[in-house]
This record gives sequence, structure tokens and C-alpha cells, in this order.
Amino acid sequence: MPAAFKTVAIVGKSDAASLPDVLDQLAAVLRRRGLKFLTDPATAKAFRNGAHETVEMEELPDRVDLTIVVGGDGTLLSCARLMAQRGVPLVGINLGRLGFLTDVPAKDLAEGIDAVLDGNYSAEERMLLSGSARRGKKTLVSAIAMNDVVVSRGAMGSMIEFAVTVDGEFIYSLRADGLIVASPTGSTAYALSAGGPILHPALSAIALVPISPHTLSNRPVAIRSASMIEITLVRGVDARANFDVQAHCELEPGDMVCVTAAPKPATLLHPPGYRYFSMLREKLRWNERTT
Amino acid sequence: MPAAFKTVAIVGKSDAASLPDVLDQLAAVLRRRGLKFLTDPATAKAFRNGAHETVEMEELPDRVDLTIVVGGDGTLLSCARLMAQRGVPLVGINLGRLGFLTDVPAKDLAEGIDAVLDGNYSAEERMLLSGSARRGKKTLVSAIAMNDVVVSRGAMGSMIEFAVTVDGEFIYSLRADGLIVASPTGSTAYALSAGGPILHPALSAIALVPISPHTLSNRPVAIRSASMIEITLVRGVDARANFDVQAHCELEPGDMVCVTAAPKPATLLHPPGYRYFSMLREKLRWNERTT
Amino acid sequence: MPAAFKTVAIVGKSDAASLPDVLDQLAAVLRRRGLKFLTDPATAKAFRNGAHETVEMEELPDRVDLTIVVGGDGTLLSCARLMAQRGVPLVGINLGRLGFLTDVPAKDLAEGIDAVLDGNYSAEERMLLSGSARRGKKTLVSAIAMNDVVVSRGAMGSMIEFAVTVDGEFIYSLRADGLIVASPTGSTAYALSAGGPILHPALSAIALVPISPHTLSNRPVAIRSASMIEITLVRGVDARANFDVQAHCELEPGDMVCVTAAPKPATLLHPPGYRYFSMLREKLRWNERTT
Amino acid sequence: MPAAFKTVAIVGKSDAASLPDVLDQLAAVLRRRGLKFLTDPATAKAFRNGAHETVEMEELPDRVDLTIVVGGDGTLLSCARLMAQRGVPLVGINLGRLGFLTDVPAKDLAEGIDAVLDGNYSAEERMLLSGSARRGKKTLVSAIAMNDVVVSRGAMGSMIEFAVTVDGEFIYSLRADGLIVASPTGSTAYALSAGGPILHPALSAIALVPISPHTLSNRPVAIRSASMIEITLVRGVDARANFDVQAHCELEPGDMVCVTAAPKPATLLHPPGYRYFSMLREKLRWNERTT
Repeated sequence: MPAAFKTVAIVGKSDAASLPDVLDQLAAVLRRRGLKFLTDPATAKAFRNGAHETVEMEELPDRVDLTIVVGGDGTLLSCARLMAQRGVPLVGINLGRLGFLTDVPAKDLAEGIDAVLDGNYSAEERMLLSGSARRGKKTLVSAIAMNDVVVSRGAMGSMIEFAVTVDGEFIYSLRADGLIVASPTGSTAYALSAGGPILHPALSAIALVPISPHTLSNRPVAIRSASMIEITLVRGVDARANFDVQAHCELEPGDMVCVTAAPKPATLLHPPGYRYFSMLREKLRWNERTT
Repeated sequence: MPAAFKTVAIVGKSDAASLPDVLDQLAAVLRRRGLKFLTDPATAKAFRNGAHETVEMEELPDRVDLTIVVGGDGTLLSCARLMAQRGVPLVGINLGRLGFLTDVPAKDLAEGIDAVLDGNYSAEERMLLSGSARRGKKTLVSAIAMNDVVVSRGAMGSMIEFAVTVDGEFIYSLRADGLIVASPTGSTAYALSAGGPILHPALSAIALVPISPHTLSNRPVAIRSASMIEITLVRGVDARANFDVQAHCELEPGDMVCVTAAPKPATLLHPPGYRYFSMLREKLRWNERTT
Repeated sequence: MPAAFKTVAIVGKSDAASLPDVLDQLAAVLRRRGLKFLTDPATAKAFRNGAHETVEMEELPDRVDLTIVVGGDGTLLSCARLMAQRGVPLVGINLGRLGFLTDVPAKDLAEGIDAVLDGNYSAEERMLLSGSARRGKKTLVSAIAMNDVVVSRGAMGSMIEFAVTVDGEFIYSLRADGLIVASPTGSTAYALSAGGPILHPALSAIALVPISPHTLSNRPVAIRSASMIEITLVRGVDARANFDVQAHCELEPGDMVCVTAAPKPATLLHPPGYRYFSMLREKLRWNERTT
Repeated sequence: MPAAFKTVAIVGKSDAASLPDVLDQLAAVLRRRGLKFLTDPATAKAFRNGAHETVEMEELPDRVDLTIVVGGDGTLLSCARLMAQRGVPLVGINLGRLGFLTDVPAKDLAEGIDAVLDGNYSAEERMLLSGSARRGKKTLVSAIAMNDVVVSRGAMGSMIEFAVTVDGEFIYSLRADGLIVASPTGSTAYALSAGGPILHPALSAIALVPISPHTLSNRPVAIRSASMIEITLVRGVDARANFDVQAHCELEPGDMVCVTAAPKPATLLHPPGYRYFSMLREKLRWNERTT
């Protein structure tokens, strides 16, 4: 049986008018169970009654043993990168629209959170990516990404060229708008729009998805997550690397972006009844017919 | 029988070491036939013997009745936009690698050019696009494009959103990396990398090709070239419009990019034996087998 | 102003329980306006009161000046092929699910049909394809198709090979599961599933869409509808041609399938408010967001 | 150090005129090294001097500890399925055209085979698929596949519908031309033509690749190879299952096709210098430019 959760972080971020109500409901559930909860300063302001114990976001992982995220997938992504370092699991509550990651609807909040706090959940590990951009021996930026590390052209509109190796083996020199290195979690985000495959979260794989490649046979490739991927910019003005579209870095020819699986995964907790493919069917409208 | 050409422009641009030789050969062919030729200042420098009559590029269309381009497709594109305004036809000579537009190999230069000058050619009209970007009543930029007009996100890595109408009818609100409005000529360039169809040059059509669209059913659409396409940026920092990747313009939400067929097409002349699909087969390696 | 309709055909086919009700409503509308209507024997049985004037389906085009189809796109397709020969226009009523072609919802039947009968409609011509399969000088089958002519492998699971020409010019020798020759109407049907572009119905074009081609650069091509397409089977057991998945023909190596635009288009009538792209948005769920 | 090979099988199949020469060269190499070799009756006929020890194909795996295949990928596939059951490794020699699996060019035969026989090789395990088709409790067919198990429509041209589960979890009900269940080896074969991703052979994954799916968001999915996939035909006349396009089975609605990783992989031996991605680059022409 899983250990009981003692201290819970609540992180909420959304433009939805319902956010304060949902946060209050969540606080009520935790209070009813006699559980202590902390929140970050921004979330604290969103509660109707803001007088909750507040600590800086960066300190939360050391202080809690569960994080409840209220909002969209973007909010969960940024919390998950942080919490994974301390092994703190997360639950995601959405405010009306099902997310790929925030799967508990706010209307089912009490039931879902009670179940999780009772230890009645399924835990799902999600691989994170550890990436960096380097210029010679200098590290330009280093970041964790839950979805993807993307090398892409900037605004000037011409293709960039880069060389890709996996574990030191040369794969190809690619002329394209860019390359997406996606985790299974990221495979249903930007990579899917660019033509990549869906990687089941239980598959230890990384997808390399070219963005509008010049050579039409440069199709997406899935490799083992234990691989070290190195992308060296060969040509291109205004190229960039981004990590979950949050950390950014300009690249010059010769710069190298390195990506590998992060040592620690994020852990998502789902109330009973969650199924990965059920969520996908709803998000991608697989089970609906158009004729 | 076509009217005889009297004054010919030679425009050459290439990093290839063979450029001066090819220009000299070309000059010899024209001299042998007693034809006058002009060249732009940049090309003049590339001749071994640079002492040719030189006029500014912008004046060439008024002075010549045929333009011979030596180099790659990019060079032909920029000449064609210029020459189309005066109805001056073009012949394209490539320096070793077949182009989609520059179809006469330098090694066959004498034979090919003689044939064209003898009136022994097929003329092919290529539709051009006329585009502009507007902010309210102000025109930000206005340009002719032979390949495409592209609205796309910049370097910051997040999707942009824009609304598209055709002849005033709303098509869709698209969240994507961008949208390519391509002529048949452009359909084998960037638009093809982004998943667009090949439009035969004789088809009076324009392709709308979304770049990595969020909604997977937002597939390429081909419409009549007589249509007026309007793209209004709804959301997005760092968005841009470009016209053949030559003219550029930053866009703000509310800005509109308008595209329609230009009134005058460019005219390409091909020596006997040219076939559009033969060229495609070679460029796209259709006639080769991998197993 | 359009000529008034005098005699109307009603053709209804559907498994939906609401079919008899809808047919009766339709009959009531026509009777109220004092219009004569005919029906085919199968439809006659579906009326609650089956005692309507009945003529064989094949004779309907000669007897009516408007056909109202109740059912799905498949029913409209088969009627349209027949009616186009006599220039009889069609209106399509769907029984609950919007069709690409049957755009009047049954619940708006009275209003929509009254508008059309008042002459208050937009008429839209849809190109048909005329196809045949030949073995030497013998015609194996000859048929009209509204969506597509498809040459494909059979059940044995190995690729077939065929050579394609357009107006006598060789395009490619293709190894694939097959090739779809699609009209604009067909471009949103099977061809879309196989990766083809959407062709606006006002564009006089035909799409050639390879099905799972061996060579990845064998991308869809759109050509002028005035073209003559010839597909010659080179290799393949158990290959077939089909025309709107209705007429079928087995093919042997050497057999040729010829496709061109049919001389007469079908004409669809739409009540006021119809917009092609509105229909597409709803069918393809373009206006919905998944995140 | 790997154990020395003592008895070698030679299996050659090809229409190439060079086959007898290559087989003779191969026999000479083995004789020079004092190694015994066996061959199957069909291959025996292809030797110039056919007087070699011959055993039935099915008995070869029990009699040899290495199999050398001369020919194309298809020949290697069928040998590999057989040899994997006894753990006999294979080397593939191609007759002029590089194969995805037969990577030793005949012109380098002596050097390559000597290296392998010296123990100087890299061994690569390739997962096989174990599939069966069932009607109620009856097994219709059961087979091993190295590339793929395919459920697809037959010749009549209409989509089939089937339900897919993975480890008992419902994924989707799919309307399509079919579904390809591909191993990493098969991911560069038919599945690639149908839009699937390339799965690196070291990745323990299976790809589910829909063939021309009706719903455009039904994109390829990669799952763990330890999964049990069940495909139940819901609707469709003339549907079939095939296993490497060799074993076939007609399917009726209600029939189920089950696929899982086979317990024993095939083992390919490569002479020094082999690199998976080098082979891909050459096969898919990644390293060549078209403009």
C-alpha cells in the first residue's frame, strides 16, 4: 500500500473564471482530511481566501509529498519538471477541457482527490528529457523538458541545416525548418502536428521528428530513450533551441544541442478509471465518426 | 512563328567555379549570332572579360526581349518576378545540378540556346502571386512572389493563430507554425516539404498548405487562382510574412496578408525535349527504386 | 430567375428509422405546392403510404426536372451520376448526420425545400469522371464516377506496379497499393484518407493520389481536369479498378484504365446559407480545438 | 570470443544472372576454410556444380550454426523466421542492390564472410512477431512474421472496420483500408509507405500503422513490444490477415487477429563497418540533395 500523503502543494494557473472556486473546493477537501497544504505566491492570490501558507515555487518540492495542479497541460508541465527532481508525484485537475496530462475534471475533483489521497490511484512514470546547448566548451543553456527539445529556424524564413548523431553514430544531415526531439509525453504535442508518431508513455523511446524536411524520405525515427542525441547546427541564421517552449537559446553554426533522458521521471497519479487510450480517443476524437 | 529575339539579358549568379566559363560560352553563342546582349553589374564582374554593356537590373526588362539566367532556381525566381512585368521570357541554365526551373544543363548550353533563338522552344507560363501585408489602411509591404507567400511564427517557438478567408468566405481559424500560399511553381518547393500537393503548372490553382497545424484534419486545400486570399493574424508574437523568402514583414495581431494571382505570369522557354514530369522524376527520384 | 420545377423525383435510402417520416414530410411539402412527384420502386416502399407514382430508377432522369435525395452521400452519388446525363439538378437531405453532399438537415426540410422550389438556391456544378478499363481493343467496363476511379491491389497483400501517363506524357511508374484518380468531390472522400489534398469544387482539377507508395516522394499531384489519364498495369496479381466503389473490374498486366472529366457535370442545389467551407469545417471538425 | 561456426547453410534465391557465380565463390570461401556447408534443394540447383550436400529447408536449422543468405530481403525474411526458432544467426549477401537486411555486397563477399567466420562481426537481434487469426476457439492460422502482420480489405474497395485492443485495453474502432502491426524491421517496409515511423531495431517496440484511415487523427502509434495486440473485425467483406505477405487468411466479422512479440528473435551478423543508419541513408537517399 502506498505511503500516506502528508503535505500537499496546490498550484493553480488559469484564465478560467472558475479557478478560485475550484481552488477553494480543493482546499476544503484537504482540510476535511486534516491535511496540510502549501501553495506558491501566485496561486495564493487566486484563492478567494488567500491566507494560506505560501512558499516560493522552487522550495515546494522539498516541502511536499504530493502536488495537485489545477489548470492546463502547460501548468502541469512546468510543475512536473520541478517536482520530478524530488520524486514528488502530481495530479492534474482541468477546468473544463480535458488535457493530455490534466485528466481529472474539476467537477469530479472531490471524488478524484479523495481516491488519490486514499491511495487508490494508478501511478504513471513519464520520462523527461535533459537537454543543453553548447558552444565549444561553454554551456549556453541547460534545461529539463517534459515534452520536447526543438531546434528550429527563426523568423527569416529559410531552412537551416544540421547534423544529427545518436550515441556518436551519424544519422543524417538534415535541411529543414527544424527537428523535434520528443518524449512519449511530447509525442502528442508539437511532434504530432509535425507528422510524428504517438509513443505510448510506457515505451522507453524518444522520437526524432523533422519539421518540413527538404528530403521527403526524412521521416520520423523512434530510438531508445537511453540514447544520447547530438544536433550540430551546420548552417542557418537565426536558429534556436527551445526546451518545452520555455527555455530558449540562440544558436550559431557549430553550436551543439545535446539531449538524453533525464535521470528522474515525473510521476503522474490518476484516479481509478483512467486509461491512456481513453484520454487519447477523446482528445483526438478517434471515437467519433464524420460520415 | 515567334518573333525573333533581338536583345538578350544575361544574368548569372552562382558560387560554382564554372560560372565564368559558362558566361563566356554564352556570350560567344550570342556574338556568333550577331545578337546584342546586356548584363547587370554583378554579372558583368563574373565574366572573364567583364567589358560588356551593363545596365542596372531594374532597367533590364525595358531593354531586352529575352533573359538568359545562369545559376540556380533562386536566381531565376528573382529575375522572373522582374521580367514578368514586361512580359520578357526567360531561359534557365543550371551549372551541374538540374533545377526545377533552370532546366538547360550548362554542357548543352550552345545547342539549347541556339534552339531557343531559332524559335524552336516550348513556352510555359507560370502564374505569379501578388501579395501584401496591411495594418489597417496602411500597406506594410507589397511584393510579387513566384513560389509562395508564407505567414509563419518566428523564433520564439509557439504556434500562431490566424483566420483565413477566400473571396470573403471564412475558411478556418488555424493554429499552426504558419500557412504557405503557394503557386504551382512553389508547390514543389517549401510547400512540398510541409505536406502540400504538387500542382501542375498548367493548373490555375493556388495551394493553401498549413505548416504543422494543431488540428490534424487541417489538410492542404487547392483553390482557383482567381481567388483572393486574406490571412488575418489573431494571436502570436514574432509572426512574419515573407514573399519568396526575399521580402519580409513583421506582423502584429490584426494585420492582414492578402494574396491573389498577379496579373502577369512569367514565361519560361524550354528547348525541345523538355517535359515537366521528366524534370520532376529526376528531381524527386521517382524513377529510381530503393529495393 | 430560374425556371420553376414541375416534376420532382424523390429517392430515399437509409437504415435510419426516421426515413418514412421524412419521406412523408417531403411528400406533404410537394403536395402543398401542387407539384407532381415520382419515386423509384425501392423508395416507394419506404413511404408510410406507398401509393405514389413509381417509375424505374433509370427512367427518372427523363421524367423529372429536380431530384430530391434523402439519405447519405452514397445515395446522392449514385443518383447524381444518373441525373447528370440529363442535366437534372439534385438536392440532398440528410437524416441527422451532415454529409459532404447531403447538406439539408431533415429537421429543416420544409424550409430548405420551399426555398429551393421558390428558386431561392445556389447551384453548384460538380465535375464527374468518365472512366473505362480496356484490354487491348476490348472495353472491359465503362462507367461514370463522381468521387473517384481507383486502381488497387486486391487481397493478396503485395504491391502492384503501374505506369501513368497524362495526355500521353509519362508521369511515373508507381509501385504502391494503388492510385486514386479523384474529382474535387472525391478529394474529401477516400483520397483524403490516402493523403491527398482537398480540391475546391470550383477548381477544374483532378488529383492523382498514390496509395501507400513505395517511393516516399511519390506525392499527390493535381492536374487540369481537361487531361486524359491512362494507367497501365505493369505487374500485380489480383489488381482491380473500381469506379465510386460501385462498378468493378479485374485487371491483368497490360490492361489500361483511362480517366477523363465527363462531358456533363452534376448540379447540386443548396438552400440559402450553404457555404462549402462551413460544411468542411463541420465535417472535418476544423473549428474545434483539442487543447 | 564467439564460438566458431562449424556447419553453414547456404540459401540463395534470385533472378540475377550472377547468382551461380556468387554461390560458387561462397562455396570456395567455405571450402578454403575447411568448413562444411549444407544447402536446400532449390539452392543446390542454382550452383554451377550442384553436387553439394542437400537437406530440406525445414531441417536446416537443426543442422547448421550459421546461415548465409544470398539474394534479397524477402529471401532473408523467410530464412530468418525459420532460423530464429533454433537461434541460428544469419548473414545476408545482396546481388548488387543493397537491402535493408542483406547488407554485404556480393563483390565484398570473401572479405565479409571471412570476417564473420573469424568472429569479427556485430550481432544484431531483430524482434519477430508471433501472430494468429482466430474464429471463436478455432485457430485459422498461426505464423511468425519478421516485418509485419497486416489486416486489410480485399479487392472490393470498401473500407473495413475493426476494433483494436492492447493488453485488453480498447484503443480504437478504426475504419480504414487496414492496419499494419510492424516490428522495427518492418517499420522500414510496408509500414513506412503507409506513413509509419522508423523504429530503430534496438527499440523494443511495435508500431500500429493505420492504412488510409477514415479519421485523419488516427495516426501511427508505437507501443512496447511486450504488448498483446488484438484486432477484431467488426465489418467488412473480403477482409484478410497476412503475415509477412506469406501466410494468408480470410477474415469474417468477429474473427480476431492476435499479435505479440515472438519469444525468440532472429540474429543478424554484420561484418565490421556496418551501421544501421548508414544503410538507411543509402536506402532512403537521405544523404542526397535534390536542389
